[in-house]
Amino acid sequence: MSLSQSKMSKVGFGLWKIPQDICADAVYEAIKAGYRHLDSACDYGNEVQVGQGIKRAIEEGLCSREDLWITSKLWNTYHAKEHVQQAIERSLTDLQLEYLDLYLIHFPIAQPFVAFDDRYPPEWITDPSAANPKMELAPVPLFETWQGMESLVEKGLTKEIGVCNYNTGLLNDLMAYAKIKPAMLQVESHPYLTQERLMKLAKQYDIQVTAFSPLGALSYLELDMAGAAESVLEQSVVKAAAERLGKTAAQIVLRWGVQRGNAIIPKTSRPERLAENLAIFDFELSQQEMDDINGLNSNRRFNDPGHFCEGAFNTFYPIYD
Amino acid sequence: MSLSQSKMSKVGFGLWKIPQDICADAVYEAIKAGYRHLDSACDYGNEVQVGQGIKRAIEEGLCSREDLWITSKLWNTYHAKEHVQQAIERSLTDLQLEYLDLYLIHFPIAQPFVAFDDRYPPEWITDPSAANPKMELAPVPLFETWQGMESLVEKGLTKEIGVCNYNTGLLNDLMAYAKIKPAMLQVESHPYLTQERLMKLAKQYDIQVTAFSPLGALSYLELDMAGAAESVLEQSVVKAAAERLGKTAAQIVLRWGVQRGNAIIPKTSRPERLAENLAIFDFELSQQEMDDINGLNSNRRFNDPGHFCEGAFNTFYPIYD
Repeated sequence: MSLSQSKMSKVGFGLWKIPQDICADAVYEAIKAGYRHLDSACDYGNEVQVGQGIKRAIEEGLCSREDLWITSKLWNTYHAKEHVQQAIERSLTDLQLEYLDLYLIHFPIAQPFVAFDDRYPPEWITDPSAANPKMELAPVPLFETWQGMESLVEKGLTKEIGVCNYNTGLLNDLMAYAKIKPAMLQVESHPYLTQERLMKLAKQYDIQVTAFSPLGALSYLELDMAGAAESVLEQSVVKAAAERLGKTAAQIVLRWGVQRGNAIIPKTSRPERLAENLAIFDFELSQQEMDDINGLNSNRRFNDPGHFCEGAFNTFYPIYD
Repeated sequence: MSLSQSKMSKVGFGLWKIPQDICADAVYEAIKAGYRHLDSACDYGNEVQVGQGIKRAIEEGLCSREDLWITSKLWNTYHAKEHVQQAIERSLTDLQLEYLDLYLIHFPIAQPFVAFDDRYPPEWITDPSAANPKMELAPVPLFETWQGMESLVEKGLTKEIGVCNYNTGLLNDLMAYAKIKPAMLQVESHPYLTQERLMKLAKQYDIQVTAFSPLGALSYLELDMAGAAESVLEQSVVKAAAERLGKTAAQIVLRWGVQRGNAIIPKTSRPERLAENLAIFDFELSQQEMDDINGLNSNRRFNDPGHFCEGAFNTFYPIYD
């Protein structure tokens, strides 16, 4: 059974930037609102709280573990083969789970190991106390990391494995060396960054795609990473479809994401949005509306470590060019 | 000594699409005109003739072998470790050489082996007699091919090794697994495709860059691969610089290429152009002229197997997206 026919629901709850103090409740409320797919990561710094929310939901009988699809991600500092298993075990401990449904390589970027006791999650800087802190790199090839990922499946620690933030070049090479094929490619995608060729290639490889930042720049506007981009929700083609269908602009853009065949993982910490973001399966965009929204593409990427690490961490390390 | 300080002259003679019947003479004339850097490849189908031209030039005392910098390239069908050495030996035989100065992986694309006796060069189609010929792929990871390349250096068959048509993602990964580091990255670059971030990354890795198609679309116009792009030679900023400096538009664009730090490999089979393309070291573009030409960038790529193989070979295989 390929992942596209699996139980993974097409709308996941994205956990990036959900603050720790509200995260357990947010996860519980999301499950209560009907979410069954949670997109977590070591790097989000809230897996303990995600685990608390899951535990409460299961204990209260909202769902069973088997009803949930839980994704987590291997951080850059654990790419060496001997660290991959430690990393997933830490995530499993924090999440209070026996297994993940999906474990992803978070970035095609390997950084020096940071021990859990030193700092967790370690984020992008190896030595934050340095006078001029840099994003350091470690020479760990991606095929070694993938071998580590494969062994997690063999040990039953995750059902499926995959990658995030790979381009076509890296994906082609991965397909050449993978003994266990990637089930998932998670990449930024929204109407300003449709990535049609990358998605077509993934489909050709029978790899499911999850689009992060499905609403475009919203998360990055908060982080001041979006520059002067106009919100995709303000685009007239989006507003026209929203008016025709009696839906919100966000629902139109999210619907566009799933209707083109992707899973999406919108994040919200506002309870009223939880239900709104799930309620996109009782209407359909016309082909013209799909085309119009596709037409907003400007290859505009908001989450690019090659950019933000240059500014924030004194390191030039592009991965998409 | 890094390659950037080496004897490789910054203007090479590009041998792609030089027809066999004029190729030996063209190479001889190029050496006579002062070229010492020849950019050859198995795939160009003319290495026997290139070798004849080199041999004649050396026999007539125009130069010695040691004066020349000769590059060739590993074709897609020889990526498997056991084929890499056979491939370079075939190129060396055809070129009548004992060693190459530089051997490059031609594309990050591995295709099924085609025996020399079956077809040489094998080009993109494994079975041209098929009813619906496809560009077939072979699951050979790039790290295995690189190991094969490294063994060529150890055996003295080439002085340096490198890659062509890699993006930043593949280059980062290569740097993680390479025991012998790549000396060269050869990629398409011209004023419509400046690739500044890729070049900056290569520089950071101490990898020299050679720009192919340094004049932009000219070669692809002939092949009907360029669409409706205006020739870079017609751009007003190029013409203005040509007028100021009393040079041809082509010389301005080639000078821009070397002045930004790259080697370039213009191709011509017209003798009068040979000297023109070399004569770009007795003038300098102003910073404003450099900036103006940089400003022509539109990320316009003409040589993209992901495009042309889809049209010509019924295969979708993007490598740059």
